[in-house]
Amino acid sequence: MHVKLATYFLPALVGPGELDGETAVVIDLLRASTTICHALAAGAKEVVPCLEVDEAKRIAAALPPGEAVLGGEREGVRIDGFDLGNSPEEYRPETVGGRTVVFTTTNGTRAMNVCRGAGRVFIGSFVCLSALCDRLKSAGPINLLCAGTKGKITREDVLCAGAIADRLLSSGAVRDDELNDQARIAWEAWRQATGAYSLQPTAYGLTPALRHSQGGRNLIRLGLERDIEAAAQIDRFAIVPELDLKAWRITAL
Amino acid sequence: MHVKLATYFLPALVGPGELDGETAVVIDLLRASTTICHALAAGAKEVVPCLEVDEAKRIAAALPPGEAVLGGEREGVRIDGFDLGNSPEEYRPETVGGRTVVFTTTNGTRAMNVCRGAGRVFIGSFVCLSALCDRLKSAGPINLLCAGTKGKITREDVLCAGAIADRLLSSGAVRDDELNDQARIAWEAWRQATGAYSLQPTAYGLTPALRHSQGGRNLIRLGLERDIEAAAQIDRFAIVPELDLKAWRITAL
Repeated sequence: MHVKLATYFLPALVGPGELDGETAVVIDLLRASTTICHALAAGAKEVVPCLEVDEAKRIAAALPPGEAVLGGEREGVRIDGFDLGNSPEEYRPETVGGRTVVFTTTNGTRAMNVCRGAGRVFIGSFVCLSALCDRLKSAGPINLLCAGTKGKITREDVLCAGAIADRLLSSGAVRDDELNDQARIAWEAWRQATGAYSLQPTAYGLTPALRHSQGGRNLIRLGLERDIEAAAQIDRFAIVPELDLKAWRITAL
Repeated sequence: MHVKLATYFLPALVGPGELDGETAVVIDLLRASTTICHALAAGAKEVVPCLEVDEAKRIAAALPPGEAVLGGEREGVRIDGFDLGNSPEEYRPETVGGRTVVFTTTNGTRAMNVCRGAGRVFIGSFVCLSALCDRLKSAGPINLLCAGTKGKITREDVLCAGAIADRLLSSGAVRDDELNDQARIAWEAWRQATGAYSLQPTAYGLTPALRHSQGGRNLIRLGLERDIEAAAQIDRFAIVPELDLKAWRITAL
């Protein structure tokens, strides 16, 4: 079965009803998408995405004592009073195992909100790339939604969308003529950045590519370069995070 | 002197004041940008860009008899009562030489409107690529503004932005770290699409790349494939079209 593969470089570029009943993949690579995968792979029961800090605190306070872990950041830094920031490696079995992570992330949550009419919503990242792409093969029409940052297109999200497109094209799950223009641009950026066609492939790679992105530069400025390396670990986990639109929580498939 | 090289995939992605006092290049490759170059290279005195058909008719009617040529399209087709459509090859010395082309194009004009605070505004295309890039070398901070189509990002405009970035990078006019994320993505799409790093460069090329774009597919559907080939003729002309923001007219440098 052949399907459509659309990419949107920002939530604002999704037209009304455009995702209705279809599969959506939300990509906020540095770092929400990657951190959510780490949390679920570390045994967190679920991740509840929130737009606002107050909302996250309210949801956490309503859970049984010891159940909630408050996580998230503003301007790249852990929020005052929160248990964890937004560094993927903070989310380990000893910090989140068996618990509910109440997670606030502005750009990622905004992108998830745009998906409210979608049939199914997955979270996209490099750390869960193969598992996600396997799942997408039988997912019908696919929409890759890049979160961006504060309304600006960010290259790290576009590269991840391009990697997903590359996998789906090479597996035959999607045909070349089923890509929209943004999907094709993302695919081209991915192939070029990672040197798939390069005569000197060793000069290229995912971590250097991510360093030259808005999110990457921001993390380097904050001294969080390790988070870029964490985000670049393709297939570190074999799970697929899915957002349950009714319950509004993310669990691992 | 080193400068910033920003790209915007759509006019809506330009923030308030972001172009103020700087150089902007408007790219509406298929076909307004290309057609404007053809018109000026064919000896048209000037091109007056208009958003609306009625506005174009009003401006043309106010000119001395025989002075105005009305050109433009809606949904790819020549407008009723207009002299010319939007096919570059229609704009020849015998149709436009010495005359004022009053030209209506929705997407291109919208992009020009976003540039009202810019210092200088040029029109970007492949047919005037080298002449434009020569001019940009000493233009200070540069903003490449893709027009898109009806609010959607179109790959043909992004590829042209990528080609301009490629020229400016390889001439040393711009440094790699002066690109914003969209400029880098555009550059990568351009390099990948045209096979600059390919082991089999003959399998690639600009015309095939443009055929696989929203604008290209649309022209093929309308039987206007020749316009794609016309738009792909790199450096056919040695002029640079510039929009005079006060007089609101485009002339050749």
